[in-house]
Amino acid sequence: MTSAGFNEEESKSRRSSLDISHDALRDLSEQFVALVQNYYAGISQRPVFPHTTGEELERAFNEPPPLEGEPLEHLLGDCQKMIEGTRHNGHPRFFGYVASPSTPVGAFADLLASAVNPSVTSWRSAPSATQIERTVVRWLGSLIGFDEAAHGILTSGGSMANLTALLIAHRVKSGPQTASEGLWNDGAPMTVYASDQVHLSIPKAADILGLGHRHVRLLPTDDHFRLDIRALREAVESDKQNGLRPFCVIASAGTAASGAIDPLGEIAGVAREYDLWFHIDGAYGAPAAMVAEKRASFAGLAMADSISLDPHKWLYTPVDCGCLLFHDPTAARRAFVMEADYIKVHEQAEESFAFWDYGIELSRRFRALKVWLTLKYYGARRVADAIADDIAMAEYLAERVQAAEDFELLAPVELSICCFRYRPPRLRARLAAAKDHEERDRINSELNRLNERIMHDVQRSGRAYLSNAMLRGKFALRACIINFRTTRADIDITVEVVRAVAREIDIDESR
Amino acid sequence: MTSAGFNEEESKSRRSSLDISHDALRDLSEQFVALVQNYYAGISQRPVFPHTTGEELERAFNEPPPLEGEPLEHLLGDCQKMIEGTRHNGHPRFFGYVASPSTPVGAFADLLASAVNPSVTSWRSAPSATQIERTVVRWLGSLIGFDEAAHGILTSGGSMANLTALLIAHRVKSGPQTASEGLWNDGAPMTVYASDQVHLSIPKAADILGLGHRHVRLLPTDDHFRLDIRALREAVESDKQNGLRPFCVIASAGTAASGAIDPLGEIAGVAREYDLWFHIDGAYGAPAAMVAEKRASFAGLAMADSISLDPHKWLYTPVDCGCLLFHDPTAARRAFVMEADYIKVHEQAEESFAFWDYGIELSRRFRALKVWLTLKYYGARRVADAIADDIAMAEYLAERVQAAEDFELLAPVELSICCFRYRPPRLRARLAAAKDHEERDRINSELNRLNERIMHDVQRSGRAYLSNAMLRGKFALRACIINFRTTRADIDITVEVVRAVAREIDIDESR
Repeated sequence: MTSAGFNEEESKSRRSSLDISHDALRDLSEQFVALVQNYYAGISQRPVFPHTTGEELERAFNEPPPLEGEPLEHLLGDCQKMIEGTRHNGHPRFFGYVASPSTPVGAFADLLASAVNPSVTSWRSAPSATQIERTVVRWLGSLIGFDEAAHGILTSGGSMANLTALLIAHRVKSGPQTASEGLWNDGAPMTVYASDQVHLSIPKAADILGLGHRHVRLLPTDDHFRLDIRALREAVESDKQNGLRPFCVIASAGTAASGAIDPLGEIAGVAREYDLWFHIDGAYGAPAAMVAEKRASFAGLAMADSISLDPHKWLYTPVDCGCLLFHDPTAARRAFVMEADYIKVHEQAEESFAFWDYGIELSRRFRALKVWLTLKYYGARRVADAIADDIAMAEYLAERVQAAEDFELLAPVELSICCFRYRPPRLRARLAAAKDHEERDRINSELNRLNERIMHDVQRSGRAYLSNAMLRGKFALRACIINFRTTRADIDITVEVVRAVAREIDIDESR
Repeated sequence: MTSAGFNEEESKSRRSSLDISHDALRDLSEQFVALVQNYYAGISQRPVFPHTTGEELERAFNEPPPLEGEPLEHLLGDCQKMIEGTRHNGHPRFFGYVASPSTPVGAFADLLASAVNPSVTSWRSAPSATQIERTVVRWLGSLIGFDEAAHGILTSGGSMANLTALLIAHRVKSGPQTASEGLWNDGAPMTVYASDQVHLSIPKAADILGLGHRHVRLLPTDDHFRLDIRALREAVESDKQNGLRPFCVIASAGTAASGAIDPLGEIAGVAREYDLWFHIDGAYGAPAAMVAEKRASFAGLAMADSISLDPHKWLYTPVDCGCLLFHDPTAARRAFVMEADYIKVHEQAEESFAFWDYGIELSRRFRALKVWLTLKYYGARRVADAIADDIAMAEYLAERVQAAEDFELLAPVELSICCFRYRPPRLRARLAAAKDHEERDRINSELNRLNERIMHDVQRSGRAYLSNAMLRGKFALRACIINFRTTRADIDITVEVVRAVAREIDIDESR
């Protein structure tokens, strides 16, 4: 690529600005807004999952780098192609993983954040954005009943929030030399405790931090998939007796597989007894603590040292926005401030505040704006009502499943996840008549294969979208409903889609 | 907060949807677009830094959580308050840190990304977005001359890209047991090499990963602030002789302080000789390799194992968008895929592709859209021309500094950073006449205090914005020009603002 110097006439200006004319900006605004408005208007009519393949998209998008600019209409065509080729998480029958539709106010907040474009590193670099993020963090802590004066930091999601929490926990419980010396020859391994339902991001974080994922003890759960407190206590005791150093226990609220909420109050007791950092992974479930009827399930939440929750999940903001909350900012600073002055109290505390003292990122998007505007636009009550409705939808799906001859519910519905499987009458009868464990295992394997095919075919049908969970060896069709567009009619349609797909496969297989 | 159940009439619907009417969506769109258009139109007239204090913003924004929704006009008023209270990185005389203005097409790309709202975890969850990110990664690798078929991942910025690179480097060079066992009792510490100009994110990453920031050797630089190759070789040899395990060398291209580019080709040679992973931190500077006249300074870049570059810096996209590029995807997978099957070749490789196999995040924003559309809208040539112009602006500032009696240039201008200081004639004369080292140190300390006050007062004036760098003990006023709005007239004004502020302080001090 070439670039010329300046000639005399241009000496006060520059050859290449990326600013565009008023008319070009108006065109750009109008066209993108039209695209977005049409997208919102038509989302329910689209197939949830696109009819496409990897090869087809590779052909469609794998161009060489564009050296010259293209006209706006080409770009809009490209954006249409992008939209045709994506999965629509905002479709009313999208129930996969833990992904929610975004609200319009959240999307326009992201436009404004990107136009003003602060990098929210510190007060000095982004005064109002920093203040707004600190306000939003306090709001979240208050709304879920964690702390009226919570501290914390917004992250790109639950994985980053959990990684940050585990790092803080470790640095608080390890000696002050760890940051500079590392874990090399630092003595016996330090160990983490969680249920076998804990999110994969926890062992992954232990691996990244050099703790080793083998040092995360994955403990058994009760019949509601909640951490077994006796097993927790035994594991901690046993590790201590073997010379290991237990330092952290992680509760899930709720689990990604079935939405189970661990017994938070009891875990807090064990944490206190053994001087463990108590972290709650509430990435998915914690916002449900805003719902009055659910508050009791979260009893003990405020006793945690830290909690993750994802506004881009159950507060319906656009991706990305996770959050880590904690009571004690000094603990967090200990993990991130390299100098010994991490407890120094500054005269003008607000103006010397920096998020890099509390987290891993330096450049940081203005994520708080979309949370701030979402809560202001709808009000927290209406958001909480939407959460309550999602829970009601999952309960309704469970009712439909339990009332059906050919479905089986595989986990209690604690929040908005319903795990079930198709179990045709012939296999139900064989299961009931099975003579031993081995025969049941064989039939369950058959059911697993069948339900995996069902999930795949339902996804590819474009009419509804379920993902899966493995629960005690059983392949579950899993509907996670954090979707403010879903109605009971959508649940009814989904049941019919699953049944129709299942029967087609089952007839095919039993031939 | 309360939430009621469903009654019979509502049984097919839901009580609380967050969908809004067509009219409300039109209102929201129009008002936010007007806000953004006005912002772009008036940015040059705003003070670069707001006239405000921490206390004032705390009062303005620290409300209780909103339980009920507020009218749109209130929200727009809040957004105006946010805008009044931020630093304007898009102002033509903003030269602080390494932050760029965003382009309109980048901002509207973020609107679309948030409306469609994919979470770019994998092909199966976001087919077209995944394909577009892989395309964008290839484009970036090709445009900077790293690799026509580059692999990689977009991140939230350079800190995350560098952390990811160091993790990959470590897992490639350590044994296969590290992920599960951790670094506990794993033998002698493994060591990292970089210049003393390397970005803070590197020691921070070593700390986070459990390697210990003391095991990052910060080596001396030459008079252009480039890593001294002899010192590198000596440090590696010495560590090996002491039983330590060198595993990674990190070059800067360019440094955050002065924009220096380490001798990449020579470092590649040392890396090969000692079997070190070779990473380049090009978060700021790497896009300048697109400029023909600068390509030679980056010779050897393609020999690195990995390189970081931030599209949200010198490709002018909105925050956040960083990128880590590498040649060998298998190496990256080794760091992130816990199962032993990380080299398994899948039949339909495109459709089984998952970004979680290559990075730390699980939820991932559709960052690629703004890079894709920026390059398509302007074309890579025009972006490269804007980069070349930024470099010309820094060179022009250096000329102005060198031609002035009362300024001193403190580092060569290699890219678009100009480091200088105010040095009034009386101190210049005293420095020249200084009899010994100690006297020069005293005068330099005086100059440091003076220039720190100058930086502070220039920032608070709102007329221009410089940050600082410490270069061999000297406090430099640092202008980093990655700003497509800056003209030579802006450079001239900045010189006059600095001089006016400096003289006022200096007169004050010499009284």
